[in-house]
Amino acid sequence: MTTLSQTILPAIEVELQKQVARLNEPRTALYHEMLTYHMGWTGEGVGDKATGKRIRPLLVSLVTSASGGTWESVIPVAASVELIHNFSLLHDDIQDKSDIRRGRPTAWKKWGVAQAINAGDGLFILANLAMTTLDNFYPAETILAGVRILQETCLNLTRGQHFDISYEARNDLQVEDYWPMISGKTAALLSACTDLGGLFGGADEGTQSVYRDFGHYLGLAFQVQDDILGIWGDETVTGKSAASDLLEGKKSLPVLYGLAKGGKFAQRWEQGPLTADEVPGMATLLETEGARLMAQQAADQMTELSLNALRMADPRGKAGDELYALAKRLLGRES
Amino acid sequence: MTTLSQTILPAIEVELQKQVARLNEPRTALYHEMLTYHMGWTGEGVGDKATGKRIRPLLVSLVTSASGGTWESVIPVAASVELIHNFSLLHDDIQDKSDIRRGRPTAWKKWGVAQAINAGDGLFILANLAMTTLDNFYPAETILAGVRILQETCLNLTRGQHFDISYEARNDLQVEDYWPMISGKTAALLSACTDLGGLFGGADEGTQSVYRDFGHYLGLAFQVQDDILGIWGDETVTGKSAASDLLEGKKSLPVLYGLAKGGKFAQRWEQGPLTADEVPGMATLLETEGARLMAQQAADQMTELSLNALRMADPRGKAGDELYALAKRLLGRES
Repeated sequence: MTTLSQTILPAIEVELQKQVARLNEPRTALYHEMLTYHMGWTGEGVGDKATGKRIRPLLVSLVTSASGGTWESVIPVAASVELIHNFSLLHDDIQDKSDIRRGRPTAWKKWGVAQAINAGDGLFILANLAMTTLDNFYPAETILAGVRILQETCLNLTRGQHFDISYEARNDLQVEDYWPMISGKTAALLSACTDLGGLFGGADEGTQSVYRDFGHYLGLAFQVQDDILGIWGDETVTGKSAASDLLEGKKSLPVLYGLAKGGKFAQRWEQGPLTADEVPGMATLLETEGARLMAQQAADQMTELSLNALRMADPRGKAGDELYALAKRLLGRES
Repeated sequence: MTTLSQTILPAIEVELQKQVARLNEPRTALYHEMLTYHMGWTGEGVGDKATGKRIRPLLVSLVTSASGGTWESVIPVAASVELIHNFSLLHDDIQDKSDIRRGRPTAWKKWGVAQAINAGDGLFILANLAMTTLDNFYPAETILAGVRILQETCLNLTRGQHFDISYEARNDLQVEDYWPMISGKTAALLSACTDLGGLFGGADEGTQSVYRDFGHYLGLAFQVQDDILGIWGDETVTGKSAASDLLEGKKSLPVLYGLAKGGKFAQRWEQGPLTADEVPGMATLLETEGARLMAQQAADQMTELSLNALRMADPRGKAGDELYALAKRLLGRES
């Protein structure tokens, strides 16, 4: 049987391609190619892995439907959040000097920093333009409310990014410094997805607000889970090498816990970058010092808050069922 | 006697500071500082030279007033275009690897590429947020029309930027390749300023359209004039060293003309970067080959088109008089 999500995902892809096609002119062919490559549609390694999972636009569509609207009418909003996600990844790759994204060379590796900055700006602008194509379905007041949610969200994304870049050089971080960073980097956009779904689905203010909480805690839980997998994950399951976060020196939640603890893990960490040989031992040390348990408890707590909010929102119909399933899949709670 | 512009400019500055103050929180103090520095309000060399002339927001305000609206109601739009201008400059400085902007170290020189990309993104988002604060003065439909104009403009800015970056490595450029680049880089935003002024001032569609043309040709004329000054300008007047564009290898209109001509200028240019010693001779050579005359004729033609459009728009009152004066000052036609 076809699920609603299986129907929605191809429609999202068509809309994304339509929005990006604004640049599909002979003179800007190279500019267009940079975007279609980054979106996973063209170039080497093209395919499902290269596009990513389109979780954010799916969330927008499902929440809209589950709160009484029609997912078809909100597809430009869904495209908008996915374009924003991709804009932030493109700039993030330059900022982090990452060579690989979704198994392929990053845009800046292929076309240089100058063009990649510009391509990221372009994706963001296309996201904003997508929001202005909703006139046929919604009154201008509602569209403007959506624009406001999206831009406030983007400002939070840059706040999170600012913290992330700043933290690299800091040695005085506390566990509490973690939350503002991932609230911006990960939770803000997921929260916007569910917020926008509530808005365009016609939910009342209270319901829209619990949908927003659902997305917020979903983002926090997902990120903490990802931090755990980045140190102690099973490589065959996660697809990225276990403990790679330690090698990269990423200041994830378990690491901040270990640093605050000031034990043997912290003493070694403060002496400079780890070698690949040291990583397994350091992962074990960090677990012994209690970081894994602490992070798992935090993830569980955020997961509960997220699922509770979803229950309170009381999502309807097939879309509602698929929202629970999507949330549980993201949170590693599949039965 | 105080001019209208002298009244408007401080109000623009207050609004800009208000919009940027969204980031004025203890945790994001450094992020906020990057923006206030780039805007010319804080740090070394603070002052009029560091802020720039705020021509774009002034254009928005004057056109609004000259087409029957009140400039006070459109101040957030004026702030928005100035924030967009500054966002594009901030990213442009990274893309061009420019060390100095308005006589001061550029943001990326002070805080690194990663933070500067993020700060530029932030300025763009603040520009978008400024547009959502117009509710008290305008119906949502009008605001949304303004958002659309602004985002289409930004897409054109990135098209121009894409050409500019691409042209650096190309040796097959024609004079015709110049216009799409500066239409995006310079004329798009000036055209948006006068377009938005017409929209929010309540001009009819025909008048709004000639205001748009006024800004477009003003931008083209201004850029060509700037290209001429960048090679043959009087250093004591322009404030930047004459012929510096030749030293930087900038593919300005006179240079593209010289290259297409394929004479002695082109032969030397194609051998690689010029030394400072060669620059005065090359400037003379380029003039001998007809590039200065051709560029001056192009500038004159665009100037006429711009002033004709302004006459057709028939701007009213004190704002109208000051629009003519502002245009003539920008185009070097002061009496």
